[in-house]
Amino acid sequence: MAIDDENAAKQPLLTSSLDQKRSSKRRRLRRSRSMPVDLTPLDKTTNNEFIPRALSPFAKVRYNLKRVGLFLIVYLGVGTLCFYLVKDHIRGEKTNGVLDAVYFCVVTMTTVGYGDLVPDSIASKLLACAFVFTGMALIGLILSNSADYLVEKQEFLLVKALHIRQKIGTTEIVKEVEANKVKYKFLVTLILLVVLILVGTVFLSRVEDLDIIDAFYCVCSTITTLGYGDKSFSTRIGRVFAIFWILTSTICLAQFFLYLAELSTESRQQALVKWVLTRKMTSVDLEAADLDENGTVSAAEFIVFKLKEMGKISQEDIELVMEEFEELDIDQSGTISASDLMLAQSSLT
Amino acid sequence: MAIDDENAAKQPLLTSSLDQKRSSKRRRLRRSRSMPVDLTPLDKTTNNEFIPRALSPFAKVRYNLKRVGLFLIVYLGVGTLCFYLVKDHIRGEKTNGVLDAVYFCVVTMTTVGYGDLVPDSIASKLLACAFVFTGMALIGLILSNSADYLVEKQEFLLVKALHIRQKIGTTEIVKEVEANKVKYKFLVTLILLVVLILVGTVFLSRVEDLDIIDAFYCVCSTITTLGYGDKSFSTRIGRVFAIFWILTSTICLAQFFLYLAELSTESRQQALVKWVLTRKMTSVDLEAADLDENGTVSAAEFIVFKLKEMGKISQEDIELVMEEFEELDIDQSGTISASDLMLAQSSLT
Repeated sequence: MAIDDENAAKQPLLTSSLDQKRSSKRRRLRRSRSMPVDLTPLDKTTNNEFIPRALSPFAKVRYNLKRVGLFLIVYLGVGTLCFYLVKDHIRGEKTNGVLDAVYFCVVTMTTVGYGDLVPDSIASKLLACAFVFTGMALIGLILSNSADYLVEKQEFLLVKALHIRQKIGTTEIVKEVEANKVKYKFLVTLILLVVLILVGTVFLSRVEDLDIIDAFYCVCSTITTLGYGDKSFSTRIGRVFAIFWILTSTICLAQFFLYLAELSTESRQQALVKWVLTRKMTSVDLEAADLDENGTVSAAEFIVFKLKEMGKISQEDIELVMEEFEELDIDQSGTISASDLMLAQSSLT
Repeated sequence: MAIDDENAAKQPLLTSSLDQKRSSKRRRLRRSRSMPVDLTPLDKTTNNEFIPRALSPFAKVRYNLKRVGLFLIVYLGVGTLCFYLVKDHIRGEKTNGVLDAVYFCVVTMTTVGYGDLVPDSIASKLLACAFVFTGMALIGLILSNSADYLVEKQEFLLVKALHIRQKIGTTEIVKEVEANKVKYKFLVTLILLVVLILVGTVFLSRVEDLDIIDAFYCVCSTITTLGYGDKSFSTRIGRVFAIFWILTSTICLAQFFLYLAELSTESRQQALVKWVLTRKMTSVDLEAADLDENGTVSAAEFIVFKLKEMGKISQEDIELVMEEFEELDIDQSGTISASDLMLAQSSLT
C-alpha cells in the first residue's frame, strides 16, 4: 500500500490550461482498500466520477429491497405461526385457522386493527403488542428503503404513456424523468392509489356484499389504518384479498403523503436555489466568497459560496474539511501540490 | 439599487496574506431586496456568516409551530362542530355530546379508530373519511415541523440532569448537545414515551377499571394507532384524559421511530465522513480535485472534492453553479474579480 502511494505520488500531474477545464477527460476513481465494509459498493456497473461507489443509490436500494423483502417474509411467517398457535385465544369472526392468522398478522402490523378478531388472553394480548411495534418498524423500513425504488421503476412507463403520441426516444424519457423526479413519482403513486381504492371498493361491494358507500367507507377506513371495524373482511375469499390489498394500499397512501411533503420541500428549495443563482453578485459577496483572500474568486470558491448560500453545505462541513486540508498542506503554501504528498510520504518512511 | 451596487463595486477589496485566512474578521451579510417573500427571515437575532437568514432553522420552526398549532385548533374546532351536529348518526358508547365529538375527532385524526363510536349514516361516514385524510396530513405536518422543535427545547434539561453532579456550565451543555443532537433527542423522546405509557397504564387501570395487563394492552393498542377497540375509554373523565393523551402519545411514538431512523442514518453518514477524511490523498485524487487544472489544489477545491466524496453535494449542484460562474467571469480569466463586476455593471448601463 505504501509503495503504491509513493509510486502514484511520483507520477507527473496533468497541468493544462483553463480553457480545457470542461474537457471530457475521464477522471479515474481510486478507492482505498481500507473503505469500511458496510460502505463497500455492491454494484459493479455504476461509473460515477469521483463519488465513491458506496453512494450509488441504486445499488444500495436494490440490496435493501432484498433485505426488506426477507424481513417481511420472516415477520409474516413468524407472525402467522404465533397467532395460529394461540388461535383459541383469539375471539371474533373466524374463517380458516391459517388464513385468519395471516389476516390478523397483516391487520396488526399495518395498525389497521379492525377488531373483528381480538386477542382474548394475556399471552395473545402481549403477542399482539410485540407484533404491532415490530410491524410499525418494518413498515417504516419498507417506506424508507424499498417503496421509493419500486415507484421509481414505474416512472418511465408513465412518461412513455404520457408521450405516446409524440413517439419520444429513451434518452428524452430519461431526461424528462430526471428533471421532474418527485413530480412523476407522486403521479405514479397517485394513480396506483386511485386504482387500489377502486379495486377495493368494487371487491368489497361484490364479495363482502356491502353497498357502495359502505364499501368506500371501509376502504378509506382501511388504507388510512383507521379501522373502526364496523365493516371489515369476513369471508374466506375476502381475507385472502385483504392480506395483499391492505399491505399494498396502506403503504401506498403513506408513500403518497411522503411524496407530497417532498414536493413541497423541493419547490421551496428550488425557489431558494433560483434566488441564490439569479441575484446579483456584489463586491461584498466577492469578499465573502474569497476563501484564500487573494482578491479574486476562483470557480471552486464560487461553488462553495453559492452552495453554502443554498443551504446545501454548512459552515461545520467546511471547517471539518479545512482541518484536514491544513494538515495535508505541509509546506503551508495554501495549496496542496504533488510536493506536499511527497513530503507526507517521506515523513512516514 | 443600481447605484448602490456600483458604489459597492468601487470599494477596494481586502487582500490579505493566507496566514490571516482564519482571522475572525466579520464578514458582512448583504441580502438583496429581491429575496422572495416566502424565503424572508422572520428572526432578527440570528447572525450566521454569509448564510441568508432565510435558512435559520430556528426562525422557520418557530413560525411553523404557530402555524401548525393554529391548524390543529381549527381542525379540532371544525371536527367537533361537525361530529356534534351528526351526533345522532354516530352509534356506540356515549357520554356527553361535545366531549364525545372531540374524542371521536381525536380518535379519527390519529387513525386509532377504536370503533367504540362508529358513524352510522352516509353523511357521518363520508365526514369521517374526510377527517381521517386531513387528520393524517395534519399529523404529518406536526411531525415534520413542530415535534422536533419541542423535543429540541428539552435537550438542555436532559444534559443538565445527566451532569448534575459535575456542575457543568451552559457552554459545555450547548457543546455536548450540539455534538450528540440526534442521540439526545432520541433519549428525550424515549423518556417521554415511557412516562406516557406509564401514565396511560395507571390511568386506565384506576379510572377505566381494567386489570394491569389489559391497561397496558390498551395503551400499546392506542399509541401504535392499532385500536382494536375491545378496550377503550368509556367514562367521561377517561375521554377527557384520552383527548390529550392519545394526541401526545401517538405523535411521541411516531417521532421516536423517526429519531431511530435518523440515528442509524447519522451513524452510517459519520462512518462515511470519517472514511473520506482519514483516507490518504493520492496523486490521482489530487488531479481529480484540481478543478482549474493548475496543478495544485486550493482550499476551496479541496472542500468541493471532499464534500462531493461525502455525498453532501452532487455533480448537478456543481454544474448548475458553474454555469452561473462562467456568465459572471466576463473577462474569461478563470476567476471573478472586481473588474468582472464592473464590466457587468457597465454593460447594464
